[in-house]
Amino acid sequence: MRGTVVESRHTGSVAVFDADGRGVLSLGDVERPVFPRSAVKAIQALQLIESGAADRYGFGAEELALACASHGGEPGHVAVAERMLRSAGLDASALKCGTHWPLHSASSQALARSGGMATALHNNCSGKHSGFLCACCAMGSDTATYTDPAHPIQREVKAALESFAGVTLGDDVRAIDGCAVPTWAMPLSGLARAFAKIGTGAGLSPGRAKALARLRAAVAEKPWYVAGTGRFCTEVMRAFGTRIFVKTGAEGVFCAALPEQGLGIAVKCDDGATRAAEVMVAAVLARLLVSESDRAALERFVRPAIKNWNGQIVGRVNPMAPLVA
Amino acid sequence: MRGTVVESRHTGSVAVFDADGRGVLSLGDVERPVFPRSAVKAIQALQLIESGAADRYGFGAEELALACASHGGEPGHVAVAERMLRSAGLDASALKCGTHWPLHSASSQALARSGGMATALHNNCSGKHSGFLCACCAMGSDTATYTDPAHPIQREVKAALESFAGVTLGDDVRAIDGCAVPTWAMPLSGLARAFAKIGTGAGLSPGRAKALARLRAAVAEKPWYVAGTGRFCTEVMRAFGTRIFVKTGAEGVFCAALPEQGLGIAVKCDDGATRAAEVMVAAVLARLLVSESDRAALERFVRPAIKNWNGQIVGRVNPMAPLVA
Repeated sequence: MRGTVVESRHTGSVAVFDADGRGVLSLGDVERPVFPRSAVKAIQALQLIESGAADRYGFGAEELALACASHGGEPGHVAVAERMLRSAGLDASALKCGTHWPLHSASSQALARSGGMATALHNNCSGKHSGFLCACCAMGSDTATYTDPAHPIQREVKAALESFAGVTLGDDVRAIDGCAVPTWAMPLSGLARAFAKIGTGAGLSPGRAKALARLRAAVAEKPWYVAGTGRFCTEVMRAFGTRIFVKTGAEGVFCAALPEQGLGIAVKCDDGATRAAEVMVAAVLARLLVSESDRAALERFVRPAIKNWNGQIVGRVNPMAPLVA
Repeated sequence: MRGTVVESRHTGSVAVFDADGRGVLSLGDVERPVFPRSAVKAIQALQLIESGAADRYGFGAEELALACASHGGEPGHVAVAERMLRSAGLDASALKCGTHWPLHSASSQALARSGGMATALHNNCSGKHSGFLCACCAMGSDTATYTDPAHPIQREVKAALESFAGVTLGDDVRAIDGCAVPTWAMPLSGLARAFAKIGTGAGLSPGRAKALARLRAAVAEKPWYVAGTGRFCTEVMRAFGTRIFVKTGAEGVFCAALPEQGLGIAVKCDDGATRAAEVMVAAVLARLLVSESDRAALERFVRPAIKNWNGQIVGRVNPMAPLVA
C-alpha cells in the first residue's frame, strides 16, 4: 500500500509440513519446482561437520553460523570467513563465489572510505564457500573444482537434499546459483519437509541429527553471523533463539523450522521479491505460534512500514487472505 | 529462467494509446489506478520552462534532461543539480527529496573513497527537485513548502496530470512519493494517453507543446543525464534519439512515447519489479517498431541475460504471450 491505494501485488505459495511428512498448511501450488537457492545452506554446511573439518579446525558458533549464512559482508563476517580459510591453509583466492561489494551499505561505504576493494570474502556466500573448502581439505578432495556438480562435495549436497526433501533431483532441474554452485529445483512441499527434519532431526541418522542440532545452536547463539545488522533472519533468531530457525533464499524463497511444534515451513513469492517472502514467512510463523507475546514480537515483520528518503512512513506491506485469516 | 527452469514469474498490464486517445493495445487491467511515480517527471518539469525559469537561468539540454531524470548520482549529475540550484541563488539545503547514496555503485564507492558523504544532491530525484525550486524562484512562490500538495507548483503538476491523462485526481488517490512530493494514482490508459501527448503535442496549447518538444530534445541530446551509465532509459534513448522517449517509474511502472507513430505506452508490472517492467516496455516497443534493425537494437533489453557473480550467464528474463506473439 502507498497511502490508501494498493500500489503493487505479490502472489506466492506456502507449504507447512510436520516431521512425519504430513501437510499442515498448503496455499497455492506447493508441487511446482522451486530453486531453494541459499535457503538450504544448513544442508550445504553438513559436510563441514560430517567430514570432521569443524572439529579438526576448532570451529565454534561463529564459523558454523557463517557457513549457513547469506551475510552482509560486514567486517566481522569477512574476518570469520578469512579465519576459516586460514585454518585449512587457504586464503580468499580459493573462493569461487565471485566478488561483490558488501550488501550492508555502511560496511560497503566504510570499505571504500578506507581505500579497500571488494573481494570474494565480501560475497554474501563466502561463509558457505569457506565451509565447502574446509570440508574438501578434511576429506582430501580437490579444492579447485568444488563448485562442479560432479565434485564429491556437490554430489553429497545433492544426496542430502534428496534425502531431506524426499525427492529425486535430475539434471533437468539443476541450474547454477548466483555464487556458482549447483542449485536444484524441488517442490515447495519437499523443502518444507526438509525443514521439519532440520528442526527436529526426525528420520535422520543420529550423527546427522547431532550435526544439525549443532548448526541450529550455532545460529541461535550467533544470529548476527547468519545475516547481519538489521536483517530479518538475524532479528527473528535473536528474538526467538533456538525456537525458530529461519533462512532466506534468493528470488523470494524463505524457509523456517519450528522445532517445538515439529514443523517445517517453505514459502516462495512467485515474482522473487524478498520483501514479500519476508512478510509471507513472518505471517505463517505468527499464525503457527500460540502465545500473544510471540505474535507481538513478529508484528513488525508481518506488516513492515515503507518509508521515503526523509524517513516518513508512506505505506506498508500487508499480508492478505488466505495467508492471514 | 534459471537454466531451463522457470524460477520466477511476473504479471502486469500494458496500455498503448494514440494521440487522439484511442486504444491500440490493452493487456491486463488498464483501468486500475497506478501510481506513475517518476515516470511523469517530464510533466513535473513543465513549470521549469513555463515559468520562464529555464530561460532566465540559461538552462540547456543538461539541466532540462536532469529535471526529467531518475539519475544515478554520478558526479556529472550532481554537478548539474548543484549548478541549477546555484543559478537560482539556492544550494542543496533547499532540497526536500531526502538523502541517499548514489544508485550508481562505482560513484557511490568513489564518493566514500574520497571521504565524502551522501547528500540530497545524490538523490535520484535531485534534478526534478532542483527544477521545482528554480520554478518557485521564477514564480516568486515559497521554496520551503514546494513538496506540499497545496503548494502552487504541486497544484499545477496535478492540473497538468489531469489534463494530459484526461482524468480527475481526487485526494483519495494521492500518496507520498519516495522523494516526498505528492503522487496520484491513475489508470494505465490515462498514462498512455498522456505519453501520446508528450510525444506529439497533440491537443496541447502551442506553448506547452513547445515546452515538451524542448524537454524531449534535451533528453535525446543528453540521455546520460536522464538516468546514467548503463541504464535502460539512457541506452534506449542513446540508440533511438528523439524517436523514442522512455522513462522509468518506481514499482514497476514504465512509460514511453513513439512520436513518429503518435503512440503513448504505459506498462505496470503488478509486483513492482523493475527488471520485468523494462522487459515489458522493451517488448512493446519492439512490437510497435517496424524495421528489423530497430527491433535488433532492442533485443538485448527484450531478453536480458541473468549473470552470476563470476559473470557467467545462468538465466534470462523472457517476455511471454500475450506480450509477445
